[in-house]
Amino acid sequence: MTKMIEYEEASDEVRAVYDDIRATRKTDYINNFWKVIAQHPPTLRRTWQIVKEVVTGPGELDPLTREMIYLAVSVTNGCEYCIASHTAAARAKGMTDSMFGELMAIVGAANMTNRLANGFQVEVDEVFRQNE
Amino acid sequence: MTKMIEYEEASDEVRAVYDDIRATRKTDYINNFWKVIAQHPPTLRRTWQIVKEVVTGPGELDPLTREMIYLAVSVTNGCEYCIASHTAAARAKGMTDSMFGELMAIVGAANMTNRLANGFQVEVDEVFRQNE
Amino acid sequence: MTKMIEYEEASDEVRAVYDDIRATRKTDYINNFWKVIAQHPPTLRRTWQIVKEVVTGPGELDPLTREMIYLAVSVTNGCEYCIASHTAAARAKGMTDSMFGELMAIVGAANMTNRLANGFQVEVDEVFRQNE
Amino acid sequence: MTKMIEYEEASDEVRAVYDDIRATRKTDYINNFWKVIAQHPPTLRRTWQIVKEVVTGPGELDPLTREMIYLAVSVTNGCEYCIASHTAAARAKGMTDSMFGELMAIVGAANMTNRLANGFQVEVDEVFRQNE
Amino acid sequence: MTKMIEYEEASDEVRAVYDDIRATRKTDYINNFWKVIAQHPPTLRRTWQIVKEVVTGPGELDPLTREMIYLAVSVTNGCEYCIASHTAAARAKGMTDSMFGELMAIVGAANMTNRLANGFQVEVDEVFRQNE
Amino acid sequence: MTKMIEYEEASDEVRAVYDDIRATRKTDYINNFWKVIAQHPPTLRRTWQIVKEVVTGPGELDPLTREMIYLAVSVTNGCEYCIASHTAAARAKGMTDSMFGELMAIVGAANMTNRLANGFQVEVDEVFRQNE
Repeated sequence: MTKMIEYEEASDEVRAVYDDIRATRKTDYINNFWKVIAQHPPTLRRTWQIVKEVVTGPGELDPLTREMIYLAVSVTNGCEYCIASHTAAARAKGMTDSMFGELMAIVGAANMTNRLANGFQVEVDEVFRQNE
Repeated sequence: MTKMIEYEEASDEVRAVYDDIRATRKTDYINNFWKVIAQHPPTLRRTWQIVKEVVTGPGELDPLTREMIYLAVSVTNGCEYCIASHTAAARAKGMTDSMFGELMAIVGAANMTNRLANGFQVEVDEVFRQNE
Repeated sequence: MTKMIEYEEASDEVRAVYDDIRATRKTDYINNFWKVIAQHPPTLRRTWQIVKEVVTGPGELDPLTREMIYLAVSVTNGCEYCIASHTAAARAKGMTDSMFGELMAIVGAANMTNRLANGFQVEVDEVFRQNE
Repeated sequence: MTKMIEYEEASDEVRAVYDDIRATRKTDYINNFWKVIAQHPPTLRRTWQIVKEVVTGPGELDPLTREMIYLAVSVTNGCEYCIASHTAAARAKGMTDSMFGELMAIVGAANMTNRLANGFQVEVDEVFRQNE
Repeated sequence: MTKMIEYEEASDEVRAVYDDIRATRKTDYINNFWKVIAQHPPTLRRTWQIVKEVVTGPGELDPLTREMIYLAVSVTNGCEYCIASHTAAARAKGMTDSMFGELMAIVGAANMTNRLANGFQVEVDEVFRQNE
Repeated sequence: MTKMIEYEEASDEVRAVYDDIRATRKTDYINNFWKVIAQHPPTLRRTWQIVKEVVTGPGELDPLTREMIYLAVSVTNGCEYCIASHTAAARAKGMTDSMFGELMAIVGAANMTNRLANGFQVEVDEVFRQNE
């Protein structure tokens, strides 16, 4: 069982991050990921800062799209924890069963065609280079 | 230089797929990926069928979101061809510079936290299991 | 341009490996991979030893099957050098265009279903556990 | 516990796929993977279609070789479910303990040399390019 | 050719990051990575902040060890740019040819045994769980 | 439960490896990895030989640095067994909580910037090529 830092025993530095997580997410619940990486406060602080900004900061992508992209990466990498937590987060933000199914279908197809492109050694089209 | 099957030299089976690609995408241009995997017609046929359905078929996710998910997977896997082609496709469907930047930021953050979850051996929260 | 150790300038330790590569493969040609990793002789020696044994040593799998498995892994990992060299090696051992196409189709499908199993969080069947 | 669609509660669309799985494999048993992805019928249908064709369709590669290639990819990606299910499938098609050991040895060696080629930045030999 | 933001044309926000990169690294040279991701200033700012802290911030690991760890990850992922840039950085911080060779040997071996552990479905020893 | 070969039932070939593991590590404990891959003695022998050399053989990198590099790769690949065993090994060789945290932070950052370099299609700087 991996050690988790609970709010009550946390240092001021860790507690400040926990407070920000709670305020940002509007819930008292702090999930295991943060309580475990709190073992190394600088990693906790930096990671929360970046996740907070890319998931909840201002931008053109809506919150659900952001979560689905996060989930697509986690599924590709096979990160069990991340798949479970970001599936929950995406559902909380409105992902329906159909959307989840479509998302998985795209992730599966992309992982397939990525390897076909590798294996057949396809060269990048000139028109795509112009799009860079 | 990898061999590509041009429309003129294609068998009927391959030509039927090329025709469907052109009709579906409303352009005569067929990108290298299809012309190369046409070396193995069953793979061409099956791959086009699945890509066509997940990218352009009916569903709740809009076309741009689908392309961005495809790109997120391709970037995670480091598939050069796929990154170039799906960046072009996403831009053609409306991805702005800001949206691209936000997408990359999420993909980067997800790849980082996936490894932190792995390395710190974080156990899945009970509440996320209930969300399965 | 990465530095390569040519036979003529090689130390005795490196030359012994080169000689064994030539004798095992029945060709004077030594491909770039070995000439580059020869920069670190212990890595050259150990790597050749293991590759020699798994690719050409006694066993139940035939030489072509071994090369196709090697290629399947290289394609999954997106290693450009390894894809080029093991495609050449598999072709030299009899891989036809059709076999290559079938191989790629399986590699693509496996990469797809691997992610569907991840994303849908499928639990291992009891009967598969009994097969362990 | 991830939700699974049992035959009895399945829609006609899902049941048709289940029937085909049973007929193709000559067994009533439907493994968890299919019962879980049945949550999204189009993904079930497309995935079964492609897996059926690449694993059991006509071709030059024999059934056991196909399963071992599938397993090689699954092991490289670290997909626990797929490793368990395709190990079982390969054994059912004749994979002996020795063949499994040889397969793992090749997969291990390929994953090693893939990274040596990456890290040493080896350039592709001219002769391998001619083999493309 | 991917667009790069040169210092002279940079916005104040981007220029502030460039100035910090120069001051931190004690060189006027800004490598392509930063000039390209400067297309999305928030990603530039956040990424530099985190890289600066983990690579040059206070800590128990010495600068060369940090660079070699960075390189080990980049080689495992097959990121060509990152391999080239972190090899240069590690050499600048004292990595000798032998150290590079040893590093590659470990990265190779780890990638091999990672797959053997996956494929043989090895269960975690009780004593390692107690070490968590 | 995966089958493990215990010392008492091991063949002479396997027992010789077990003896060398014990002598090299100065402990009677043989962890599950070796007892499981002992199912295929050539893989056991070759794997132990290479791991022994890269982890404990002569070289410029100290034992702890080697273990941390091994762990960085295992975390990147998401190999649960390897993460658990090499975390234990690194701690036994002196990795403190802070060092572990710093290591994870670097692994996380590298996985992030690897994808930013991929996605933004950054070209390798001329000066880094000269460093090859």
